[in-house]
Amino acid sequence: MKTLVVVAHPQIENSATEAFLKTAASFDENVTWHQLATPFDIKREQSLLSAADRIIFQFPMYWYSAPAILKEWLDKVWDNYLVNNHLVTGRELGIVVTVGHAASSFQPGASQQYTIAELLRPYEALAHNLGLQYLPAFPIYQFDQQSDEQRQLLFICYQQYLAIPKLCHFKDEVKWFADRLEKKIANENDPVQRAKIEQLLLLLNDQQDELDDLYMSVKWLREKEDY
Amino acid sequence: MKTLVVVAHPQIENSATEAFLKTAASFDENVTWHQLATPFDIKREQSLLSAADRIIFQFPMYWYSAPAILKEWLDKVWDNYLVNNHLVTGRELGIVVTVGHAASSFQPGASQQYTIAELLRPYEALAHNLGLQYLPAFPIYQFDQQSDEQRQLLFICYQQYLAIPKLCHFKDEVKWFADRLEKKIANENDPVQRAKIEQLLLLLNDQQDELDDLYMSVKWLREKEDY
Repeated sequence: MKTLVVVAHPQIENSATEAFLKTAASFDENVTWHQLATPFDIKREQSLLSAADRIIFQFPMYWYSAPAILKEWLDKVWDNYLVNNHLVTGRELGIVVTVGHAASSFQPGASQQYTIAELLRPYEALAHNLGLQYLPAFPIYQFDQQSDEQRQLLFICYQQYLAIPKLCHFKDEVKWFADRLEKKIANENDPVQRAKIEQLLLLLNDQQDELDDLYMSVKWLREKEDY
Repeated sequence: MKTLVVVAHPQIENSATEAFLKTAASFDENVTWHQLATPFDIKREQSLLSAADRIIFQFPMYWYSAPAILKEWLDKVWDNYLVNNHLVTGRELGIVVTVGHAASSFQPGASQQYTIAELLRPYEALAHNLGLQYLPAFPIYQFDQQSDEQRQLLFICYQQYLAIPKLCHFKDEVKWFADRLEKKIANENDPVQRAKIEQLLLLLNDQQDELDDLYMSVKWLREKEDY
């Protein structure tokens, strides 16, 4: 699966969040990191879009929307040619949005009043109009105030958001972890370290097998119940 | 009441709709027509905003949002200085949005899936954040296909949207009409025409008096019911 991360940030060189996310994205050769800059080469932008399976709009929230450059890119690159030739039809559209307020403030009655999902409605409408599958958004709240542990989790979850074919499926998450451990084993020169990672991979696979068995049992019980 | 119409249209010279609306707006000396063009003189933009009682964002809908230039203007002009000095607090914010689809297509299950109100949520959130009163939006559907009669109605309704202090109050609408008739009488040289308009004004005022009497009666009946 090929993922295109379209990054819209007017001051990207000053953004610790974007630097962090760029590092996380760099571990996956199927992810293309694409920072928007004017003027746009429309044909090139369109071929990048059409080569992707998953398109991510990634931006800091400015006045409840993406910075102007994302809209400029949409207004210019998502043109009649792109629409009439179905260049993005059937792709997935995900949104990674960084915000300065806490998650709890985005709800009726709280300071921001509206949910992130509501504020992103125009992108959802775009996906609906052009036949893209709209993914659940990936908001990052108050990155500056996150602990090391929260950031470690963010690092993994963000990589998964870019790469896992079926989001929210636990089995795909396990497979994603197993694939990465296998890669790590192949590149590890220290035999002690390698043995440790092999142990971890074995454990993970065993647990997945056990989980599969449990699923089968549950399925069997349910079918029996139907009679 | 001073109204600032902030017009964001990348091809305004080709827009019959904007030409039509500009003509309608030109009849009112309290309305400032302000077409956005880069680069922005931020101080001048801010003083225009702060001098207005009602601010209107007016634009054609491109990909379920305003054209990029409105966002660029918001990102640059609605800055920390504007926020910290409350330059727009207490103003009203209205949205005039022109769309190429029919009104009926903006609802769940129809082709556009989302309501105009939902799609404009980011502007509503902006108003909420900065203490502006958000007015009901003024969408103009398929201007190209409107009949002369529909356009005459649009002409009046749009003028009212820019100028009437309390929107949706019938009495204020009548007052607005009466003011305009009085102005017309003062400028009319033909005595026959003037007599006709005076007749119309008299009729309008009589009907308003009758309506006021009816309101009083209803109020009196309701109060009586309470005992």
